[in-house]
Amino acid sequence: MKIIVDAMGGDNAPDVTVRGAALAAKEYGEDILLVGQPEAITAVLRAHGLENTEHLTIMPASDIVDMHDDPATVLRRKPDSSMAVAFKLLKAGEGDALVSAGNTGALLTGATLYGGRIKGIRRAALAPVLPCEGGEVMLCDAGANTECTAEMLLQFAFLASLYAEKNNGLKSPRVGLVNNGTEDTKGDPLRREAYALLKAAGDAGRLNFVGNVEGSQVPLGACDVAVCDGFMGNVLLKTVEGTAKFMAHEIKKVFTASAGTKIGYLLCKKGMDDFREMFNQDKVGGAPFLGIAKPVIKAHGSSNEIAVMNAVRRAIAYTKSGMIDAVKENIQYMTVE
Amino acid sequence: MKIIVDAMGGDNAPDVTVRGAALAAKEYGEDILLVGQPEAITAVLRAHGLENTEHLTIMPASDIVDMHDDPATVLRRKPDSSMAVAFKLLKAGEGDALVSAGNTGALLTGATLYGGRIKGIRRAALAPVLPCEGGEVMLCDAGANTECTAEMLLQFAFLASLYAEKNNGLKSPRVGLVNNGTEDTKGDPLRREAYALLKAAGDAGRLNFVGNVEGSQVPLGACDVAVCDGFMGNVLLKTVEGTAKFMAHEIKKVFTASAGTKIGYLLCKKGMDDFREMFNQDKVGGAPFLGIAKPVIKAHGSSNEIAVMNAVRRAIAYTKSGMIDAVKENIQYMTVE
Repeated sequence: MKIIVDAMGGDNAPDVTVRGAALAAKEYGEDILLVGQPEAITAVLRAHGLENTEHLTIMPASDIVDMHDDPATVLRRKPDSSMAVAFKLLKAGEGDALVSAGNTGALLTGATLYGGRIKGIRRAALAPVLPCEGGEVMLCDAGANTECTAEMLLQFAFLASLYAEKNNGLKSPRVGLVNNGTEDTKGDPLRREAYALLKAAGDAGRLNFVGNVEGSQVPLGACDVAVCDGFMGNVLLKTVEGTAKFMAHEIKKVFTASAGTKIGYLLCKKGMDDFREMFNQDKVGGAPFLGIAKPVIKAHGSSNEIAVMNAVRRAIAYTKSGMIDAVKENIQYMTVE
Repeated sequence: MKIIVDAMGGDNAPDVTVRGAALAAKEYGEDILLVGQPEAITAVLRAHGLENTEHLTIMPASDIVDMHDDPATVLRRKPDSSMAVAFKLLKAGEGDALVSAGNTGALLTGATLYGGRIKGIRRAALAPVLPCEGGEVMLCDAGANTECTAEMLLQFAFLASLYAEKNNGLKSPRVGLVNNGTEDTKGDPLRREAYALLKAAGDAGRLNFVGNVEGSQVPLGACDVAVCDGFMGNVLLKTVEGTAKFMAHEIKKVFTASAGTKIGYLLCKKGMDDFREMFNQDKVGGAPFLGIAKPVIKAHGSSNEIAVMNAVRRAIAYTKSGMIDAVKENIQYMTVE
């Protein structure tokens, strides 16, 4: 297996992408193609004594996509950028999956243009996982599609459910529709239409649809897959992140208030470290673009080397999972006449 | 001043509503009209030795609105319910403001029918406040209107801004538009249209519009007023609540893990109590319906007596604030031709 890593994408590239790729090559033993400026990549490898890392190959690309580039056009305008070259390698079959911490919009465009949507899938979705009570929940879509149809929400449900099943080993993942109440008449016309489609799929035994879920139920673990349009998903995801950060700040104030509270902190340190680890996005590594015919993983822009390594792990697992074939086999249940 | 309290509305009515009203009557010295079943109200007063509470008058109403009643029709179908009678008292000028912990949808219908919208206002909005880094943020709309126009979002911005100014003493409250990115081109057509209206109001010096805000920025204190449609507002509000609850559960696990962590907790108890207090919705009391010509306060369904007392405090402050007159004076800036 070969995993393509965009060495130049992300806030801390190429430093963390190169180190993360080297870590992954050592840890997982799969081939990694590092796409980017050879001098820059080599400099990082040398600085960290990683020149002789096995399974690591540099693929030259002279240009860089940055966060200010227009997502829709940049891959055409910058054909020699690391991201464009990475996608061309993916399309040519030179690699099995692609990992990038770069411009999300450009990645979505590239995934669609070069990876290609699975036949019958209307739009690709971005599906990160969030920690929640009792485990984790996959949010789909979390930002790829600002405006959605009910059929798209049905497809997001199937895509994330099949991913959770094939990648995370969940048996019949619980699928919830994010809504402003649990009753089946709740929501705007889009939600009511999507509810009917999801309910029918649930009744037919094709999805484990648990009904509408409120915003509060997502972090409290009411479902394994939370389905929403990308606008809502973006706001929901970031609201969880912001609330967690706000609370973490306040707890830090409590622990640093006095000599006594500092001792209190030391007594609870192990548990607080585990608690922090639960919200550590680095271990998650990245989020898949679902609905694309080849695995594409978006790592967080602010990824460190551990996050990049974990994104590669996720790409390897995704490639092996058979999830994309499962989507193809079930595509007739995901389309609305 | 007379505050009308729906004694039969809410999960724990009439017990907590009656006790909360009695507390408020003692604490604030304003007249309170307790609307509901006289025997039930009297029983609670007697059980708590509150029969002789000054400023407390019982107004009989034989029926009850419950959470299963259809919000749109219940006040007509149950004209003798405590909520319907309370609204008729408000309309007749027998009281200055109304507080209820009952069915939110029925309250919105009643507020619109009996309180009446301020001339020029398209729809009433529900505007709760949330704790955030550095203070609190008012969310408007948080659930009254599932589908909105850009003009409605503009009105929500003015309503919440004027409320924050007149009630909370904020000088030119910072108004943000909840969106999926901070750039001015972000969002769906509704958000882009609303952005243009808010930007124009900001440029004219009528609102302190700080631009688009992401979900993460709301709990992190980027604005004093967060404007959104009621569907998004409902999900955002509940996501904050659910995340806070999830994190509180996890922190509790940390503190109760061992004898050592329990000592750690005792050392930090004061700070942790303050921290919990920050997320205590009881002290907030309730959320105003904005855009209505008379003050109507929705207390949380699960309110305890302290929450009811604080909802009455909020109703008194709202009545005195002059906010409704300020809306009338500024109505020409809130309408789109």
